[in-house]
Amino acid sequence: MTDLEKAMESLITVFHRYAKEGGNKNTLSKKELKNQISTEAYFLDKANEFFQMLDEDGDGTVSFHEYIIFCATLAMLC
Amino acid sequence: MTDLEKAMESLITVFHRYAKEGGNKNTLSKKELKNQISTEAYFLDKANEFFQMLDEDGDGTVSFHEYIIFCATLAMLC
Repeated sequence: MTDLEKAMESLITVFHRYAKEGGNKNTLSKKELKNQISTEAYFLDKANEFFQMLDEDGDGTVSFHEYIIFCATLAMLC
Repeated sequence: MTDLEKAMESLITVFHRYAKEGGNKNTLSKKELKNQISTEAYFLDKANEFFQMLDEDGDGTVSFHEYIIFCATLAMLC
């Protein structure tokens, strides 16, 4: 597997690691996103604000599509 | 380092691995993108079409911003 494929796989794995905790297995609830940020991206202190920002369609959950934009933004900040 | 951080680092590392080959060290030329796709994402056979698609501002190079959108799209296809 190439480095790019491994990176992709990690992004997908991390998403599902938290999305599967409760409710819809394919979306991140606010609680699931908070858990992920506190563990995976502890340097981000404003989980609530991030949730609002990511939840583009305002349905109270973060889909993989909305999540991957978060990852892209995070990568640009690095 | 968390899995999410490792994935971010990989995306950045892979971008610079190819961007530094020639010319502007912070952008991918068409040749550099072709090298990356043939090595890192060999399952993609239409490098030319991808280049047009990624080069949003049409300046003949792919910036990290344009590249990370490619990675996000690729992750959604996986």
